[in-house]
Amino acid sequence: MTLWRKALAELLGTAGLLCAVLGSGIMAERLAGGNVAVALLANTIATVFALYVLIEVFGPLSGAHFNPAVSVVMALRRELPAASLLAYVAAQLTGAMLGAWLANAMFDLSVLQWSTKLRGGWGPWLGEVVATAGLVLVILGAPTGKAAQLVACYIGAAYWFTSSTSFANPAAVFGRMFSDSFAGIAPGSASGFVVAELIGAAIGASLHRLVR
Amino acid sequence: MTLWRKALAELLGTAGLLCAVLGSGIMAERLAGGNVAVALLANTIATVFALYVLIEVFGPLSGAHFNPAVSVVMALRRELPAASLLAYVAAQLTGAMLGAWLANAMFDLSVLQWSTKLRGGWGPWLGEVVATAGLVLVILGAPTGKAAQLVACYIGAAYWFTSSTSFANPAAVFGRMFSDSFAGIAPGSASGFVVAELIGAAIGASLHRLVR
Amino acid sequence: MTLWRKALAELLGTAGLLCAVLGSGIMAERLAGGNVAVALLANTIATVFALYVLIEVFGPLSGAHFNPAVSVVMALRRELPAASLLAYVAAQLTGAMLGAWLANAMFDLSVLQWSTKLRGGWGPWLGEVVATAGLVLVILGAPTGKAAQLVACYIGAAYWFTSSTSFANPAAVFGRMFSDSFAGIAPGSASGFVVAELIGAAIGASLHRLVR
Amino acid sequence: MTLWRKALAELLGTAGLLCAVLGSGIMAERLAGGNVAVALLANTIATVFALYVLIEVFGPLSGAHFNPAVSVVMALRRELPAASLLAYVAAQLTGAMLGAWLANAMFDLSVLQWSTKLRGGWGPWLGEVVATAGLVLVILGAPTGKAAQLVACYIGAAYWFTSSTSFANPAAVFGRMFSDSFAGIAPGSASGFVVAELIGAAIGASLHRLVR
Repeated sequence: MTLWRKALAELLGTAGLLCAVLGSGIMAERLAGGNVAVALLANTIATVFALYVLIEVFGPLSGAHFNPAVSVVMALRRELPAASLLAYVAAQLTGAMLGAWLANAMFDLSVLQWSTKLRGGWGPWLGEVVATAGLVLVILGAPTGKAAQLVACYIGAAYWFTSSTSFANPAAVFGRMFSDSFAGIAPGSASGFVVAELIGAAIGASLHRLVR
Repeated sequence: MTLWRKALAELLGTAGLLCAVLGSGIMAERLAGGNVAVALLANTIATVFALYVLIEVFGPLSGAHFNPAVSVVMALRRELPAASLLAYVAAQLTGAMLGAWLANAMFDLSVLQWSTKLRGGWGPWLGEVVATAGLVLVILGAPTGKAAQLVACYIGAAYWFTSSTSFANPAAVFGRMFSDSFAGIAPGSASGFVVAELIGAAIGASLHRLVR
Repeated sequence: MTLWRKALAELLGTAGLLCAVLGSGIMAERLAGGNVAVALLANTIATVFALYVLIEVFGPLSGAHFNPAVSVVMALRRELPAASLLAYVAAQLTGAMLGAWLANAMFDLSVLQWSTKLRGGWGPWLGEVVATAGLVLVILGAPTGKAAQLVACYIGAAYWFTSSTSFANPAAVFGRMFSDSFAGIAPGSASGFVVAELIGAAIGASLHRLVR
Repeated sequence: MTLWRKALAELLGTAGLLCAVLGSGIMAERLAGGNVAVALLANTIATVFALYVLIEVFGPLSGAHFNPAVSVVMALRRELPAASLLAYVAAQLTGAMLGAWLANAMFDLSVLQWSTKLRGGWGPWLGEVVATAGLVLVILGAPTGKAAQLVACYIGAAYWFTSSTSFANPAAVFGRMFSDSFAGIAPGSASGFVVAELIGAAIGASLHRLVR
């Protein structure tokens, strides 16, 4: 498998993920009539199903990272060639943006828009640290052949148990900037989330080494 | 397995699918008291469970397409004999209609009725293109033995992340015409959805070829 | 494994099933504040999880029928010795009653009570025929090793797509008579449901023979 | 694997479990706008997903008990060395407390707080007996390789079918004391629940011996 094919798989998979996260967020917000818990429940179920499917389908092609924090960890563990890292991250960010635009187009919204949803503060930042540390622990600790369902279930749980609803993924942060829905994040809030995610990834990798 | 047995399996499976989609739609609409998000959540769960079961049970008999767009793709890939295509599609459409009528009968509605629910516009049509392209990508890219759960989960996600609630199946469009419920589609809206689905199937098959 | 041990497994499993169905019904009704769709959603999820667990745990012991209609079909197919049928059915009915009483006791209700919920009419009876025919088709058609998840998912779907909420089990009808909750059934309504279930089981077994 | 590593795995896993149970409880309570059934539904889904993931990830390290009642049963069955029991229980209790504190911190609540939610009475105590007996039956009766999904699904069902919402775990009782949310339990109510759980564990182990 050539690198450009792997990058294409990462681009398509990340686009699919953001399209699913944001599309279901828009749909849920429209239908839920103000009941945010019901909206997040629908958003959760759609995300879990989509993530499971995407990892199973694209995993054999590229490893199905869809997440720069995961790709960095894999590069540091030498499971991803360092020379591939830039292509992976570029594909993930591009895919995230395209997925967000596709969701906007499907729901008859202006394709190019920016989120106005401010997120941050010590609680949510700690939430993102916890969310990403847990994600890395799950990915590195998953028994062979079970990563897809474990990662999907983990994210489904973390949507609820973290105060940030668990983005846990700098590409997801990037893509969510392009959606002025309840699942979006204002560009000005993005850097805090990304820093928290990178700290969380480092903690997760360290905890994994400590236990194994 | 003779062709008529395969066609019978397609008929029973598609009837079961439409009966599940429309029956749960009627039940959900009756119980949800106007909360459409809760109704769609119930509709989603019933559809995912039913689809998973039907593909597992009928897959070994006929391949469990239940979907003319999928049968056409399979015929073009020579995984379905061209001579079987017509029987498959006829069985799927007949089954879809019978499944809708069975749902109507169970819920004490007049068996023969027509949906009055208009659907369409560029957003929902794009939704159907995306929904069907994704479905074909999932079917062609599913690892061996995992197609049933992947297709079911995919449709569960796509009910929420596409603006059309993802029919992704011309037989489903046909069957839903016979149900004047929140899951139905007016006959006049059907052709737009079917065209979008065929375009989506072609895009999905092309993307699959590009990545593999 | 002696017959009395198998009967004990059927008794415990059916008790667990009815305790789960009725206990979650009582809890859901109490918490849902009149939103019946949310209550049935909770009831569905609890039933699917419990049924899956019970079939996996008791399947290797007794086959995990928990259902006289299933035991009759199995006896007719000579997969259950005719001499065991009476013990199986007696254990299932006893277990169903004990499970209902246990649910009542847990929720501080009078242990011995009778449902006042009338159910019936051509729609719901047809619903029970469909529900039980589908259940038998799923049981007889399940690929090896997948019966537990397929039966659980099937019942979860049929709670929503049948007009009767799919009891599909004479022992479940019997046990639900002892619960004056939204999941109960008045004793006077029981015979109609049981007759419909036996007709459905016969149709399901015939359809299975036709397709295979 | 040295004992301290196993104890660390128990500590991390129990912390993750309580963080997921309580974090999702806080989130659900905040979003559900007083609809307790929707809140418990979200709490259920988050718990099931988290428990499944934690057992899969930590099972190969420590057996993934996360529960003193389970560790005691395993020690009595000589599947856990008696000399390890104290370390396991200490790690579980410590982890439960830390997980609760982490959830409080993430949601900007005062880290050290005590639940004021009174729980008890014959109904809920019987609920805890049933919940823990069932849990032990499931753990001891699970076919090889299926314990993770069976335990997770069992707890998801028992959240609804027991009147106590199924803590079924003295470490969970301990951790929930530190959360003044709808998932908490007042310290004065804890001993009744723990006694009920130990009785339930004994009944579960006895029933298992009777059937096998």
